[in-house]
Amino acid sequence: MLRLLSALALGFCLASTAMAASPMGPPRQTEALPGSGLEPKDLRVAEGLRDRALEGSAAFGIVEELTTLVGPRLAGTPADHRAVAWAEQKLKALGFDKVWRQEVSFPYWRRGHESGEIVGAHAQPLVLTTLGGSVGTGGKPLEAEIVEFANFDALKAAAPGSLNGKIAFVGYRMGRARDGSGYGPAVGVRGAGASEAARKGAVALLIRSIGTSTQRFAHTGVMRYDAETGKIPAAAVSSPDADQISRLLARGETVRVRLDLAAAEMGMGRSWNVIGEVTGRESPEEFVVIGGHLDSWDQGTGALDDGAGIGITMAAAEAIAKLPERPRRSIRFIAWASEENGLFGARQYAASVGAAWEQHQVGAESDFGAGRIYALRAGVSPEALPAIRQIGGVLAPLGIVTEETGGGPGPDVGPLVMLGMPWAQLAQDGTDYFDYHHTPNDTLDKIDPKALDQQVAAYAAFAYLSAETAVDFGRAPVREATR
Amino acid sequence: MLRLLSALALGFCLASTAMAASPMGPPRQTEALPGSGLEPKDLRVAEGLRDRALEGSAAFGIVEELTTLVGPRLAGTPADHRAVAWAEQKLKALGFDKVWRQEVSFPYWRRGHESGEIVGAHAQPLVLTTLGGSVGTGGKPLEAEIVEFANFDALKAAAPGSLNGKIAFVGYRMGRARDGSGYGPAVGVRGAGASEAARKGAVALLIRSIGTSTQRFAHTGVMRYDAETGKIPAAAVSSPDADQISRLLARGETVRVRLDLAAAEMGMGRSWNVIGEVTGRESPEEFVVIGGHLDSWDQGTGALDDGAGIGITMAAAEAIAKLPERPRRSIRFIAWASEENGLFGARQYAASVGAAWEQHQVGAESDFGAGRIYALRAGVSPEALPAIRQIGGVLAPLGIVTEETGGGPGPDVGPLVMLGMPWAQLAQDGTDYFDYHHTPNDTLDKIDPKALDQQVAAYAAFAYLSAETAVDFGRAPVREATR
Repeated sequence: MLRLLSALALGFCLASTAMAASPMGPPRQTEALPGSGLEPKDLRVAEGLRDRALEGSAAFGIVEELTTLVGPRLAGTPADHRAVAWAEQKLKALGFDKVWRQEVSFPYWRRGHESGEIVGAHAQPLVLTTLGGSVGTGGKPLEAEIVEFANFDALKAAAPGSLNGKIAFVGYRMGRARDGSGYGPAVGVRGAGASEAARKGAVALLIRSIGTSTQRFAHTGVMRYDAETGKIPAAAVSSPDADQISRLLARGETVRVRLDLAAAEMGMGRSWNVIGEVTGRESPEEFVVIGGHLDSWDQGTGALDDGAGIGITMAAAEAIAKLPERPRRSIRFIAWASEENGLFGARQYAASVGAAWEQHQVGAESDFGAGRIYALRAGVSPEALPAIRQIGGVLAPLGIVTEETGGGPGPDVGPLVMLGMPWAQLAQDGTDYFDYHHTPNDTLDKIDPKALDQQVAAYAAFAYLSAETAVDFGRAPVREATR
Repeated sequence: MLRLLSALALGFCLASTAMAASPMGPPRQTEALPGSGLEPKDLRVAEGLRDRALEGSAAFGIVEELTTLVGPRLAGTPADHRAVAWAEQKLKALGFDKVWRQEVSFPYWRRGHESGEIVGAHAQPLVLTTLGGSVGTGGKPLEAEIVEFANFDALKAAAPGSLNGKIAFVGYRMGRARDGSGYGPAVGVRGAGASEAARKGAVALLIRSIGTSTQRFAHTGVMRYDAETGKIPAAAVSSPDADQISRLLARGETVRVRLDLAAAEMGMGRSWNVIGEVTGRESPEEFVVIGGHLDSWDQGTGALDDGAGIGITMAAAEAIAKLPERPRRSIRFIAWASEENGLFGARQYAASVGAAWEQHQVGAESDFGAGRIYALRAGVSPEALPAIRQIGGVLAPLGIVTEETGGGPGPDVGPLVMLGMPWAQLAQDGTDYFDYHHTPNDTLDKIDPKALDQQVAAYAAFAYLSAETAVDFGRAPVREATR
């Protein structure tokens, strides 16, 4: 109830601030809130960062470089290593105080050739993609009959042995939402569906892509095998191809599919977290962590996922590095390694800091595309809420509402949050994110440079004020067991 | 000037008719115009065809069958032959009076494997597609440096020998327009660019796809070689890949591309025009020709190009076949063979009728996707204009304006029009047609069934009235040398 009342009071406060940003004139200066640990001069600095970013930030140029000079950068590949070298060089060129790498190792997976087709009287090719981590078809095509399931629960309910020699096909359609909330209910079958199907006797798993577009792209993404179950290949077909399979089955046709997938595990690979620090003037051993992940899937160019996050947060940290004076605490920009196949960079970093997580005051990751930020949410100690509200007041003219419930940390700050690090979420509009996510269509042209500038404005103000406030962010609240 | 005045007068007349179709009530009955050769009872029949089609036509079901049971159907392939068998069977099942095939032969081309990539320090894969009719790279990859040209004229202006050993890349962007008028200025380099580049010494041609989408699909389409010039491979990259090449070049980088294209000419192939006739009650040897083309490119499922045209015109002819009485003249529905690689079905048909083209009163093809029809245009003798205006009056409640200038016949009626056959154009809204045209993304889900119904309504009324009128459509006017 206290939280609800706070939220209502805050809502009022933010509405007033937002009004001040009307077209009638420049935004009024944000007023200092009691308990925020921030002084009016700090707010003026943050407003300056915000307003200069809106005039044009470095973010788009950074994404342009990364996607043009490197392009796709699957963790462990030569391209990924080129991305690491690029990031290190870029941080140095941008004037960060310290720049270093942290080595990370992980299972290295390669896609290789992949193709599939419906065979028989109604033969036609399928657009599909092997799921990340999947085995291949063993050097020769695999051909079997399709059995369709409406969703993962229906597959789970199938009798053991009922899929002997068959290909399980799960046709669930992911729903579109600004906050990407359609992803959770959809993605389970991508991660765990292959082992589930194998337990029923299936020889392969095929799923409708986890995505929201009807463009004919298949969406890849990571999957995992149970330790106890034999490994079968897993792939996703594009939405139109899923429709095609379903239409043939609805006509009472037997649908046989041939899969030829050369994917393979290649032992352990290595890469590096790349870290750039803007060193604090008073408490250099306290950190505000922002960043994105440097690796990408192999078929797009990783512009939205997560070149945008790299560009936004690197540009925000750079803007702070250009100020005449460093903030009180340090800011750590981290380009996380090997996120896509299981947060390996983030887990390595968390393991390496251990109890020293407490030096990490608060962390935020940008890893949800390039849509504008519409909400600030946080998981901090109650004593730090006034600081979050204060930051929210500076972000309000950007069209950002502060919400005191909901949300969660970005994936790569998750391992630190598990240790106890407070988090903030600068929630991006992801309405169309899953149109492009993990497809060959994730390319630079899908990014609006002005939307990146809005996000740099928010990240710069957030990171600066979090580094400047006298408030300690404490410890991340334990999440409720249910949402 | 006479034409302009007529058009103005007609505009007024159509505006009145359109008003009658307001939500205030059912459309008023169309009034018979002097000289149209049509009586009020004929107009009532056409209005009935129109209004029943709007309630739900057979068109979408036909496209659904063709794309689901056959899918892609490159001329001469087994899938194309399955499409021919399907069309023949379908026309018989729908109650056409006569159904037959006409054999067609043509150069049979196969795509085979295709891949390409930027190599070197900024290596990344390219999404590309071989142009139809192109040779391959000779069983091994071809690697060379890119030289960029803004458009075809710039390539033509290059000095002989200036491209020795290089790949010519033409980056021209096609413009979007409802009438598809961006296609003409863009497509020249696709057809003739390879030989032009070869004359300058180039070893391959690469073009930005002829299309209007930024989705990462490459658009194929037919090309031809000069007889005098050595053949070099030709391919199109997707719009994001064209951007990528241009960005690297703009940074002053040397861009080397490796192409591996297995395309090959396979000698002569064969297919069939499939013809279904609704035989006229008084003048069965006079024909109104409607149709679409049955073949498609090999990567999409030929839903928009041209399953839609097949569905619309087959459904329109079927609706007429279901009337209690046949119209005066015959209606010939023709599913044209081998359109994509050079109108081979249409040319074969025209050659086979020769002087008997005069039996063909008027022809129209639907081959511009699935967007609603917004204009009726025609090339007929001046004496037949009142009949066209009369037909336009019946189409007006569908949101269709009759225009007395501009337009042209669909591709497959072109050879008959060259002989003298009058034509009509039921112009479709092609604003987004070139987003999908000749890509893997041309699939059933891109079609709105209600938009098809509107088009069936228009084609059924048009074909019925053209077959019923006492007016002779005469001869197609000779086109002006310039547009």
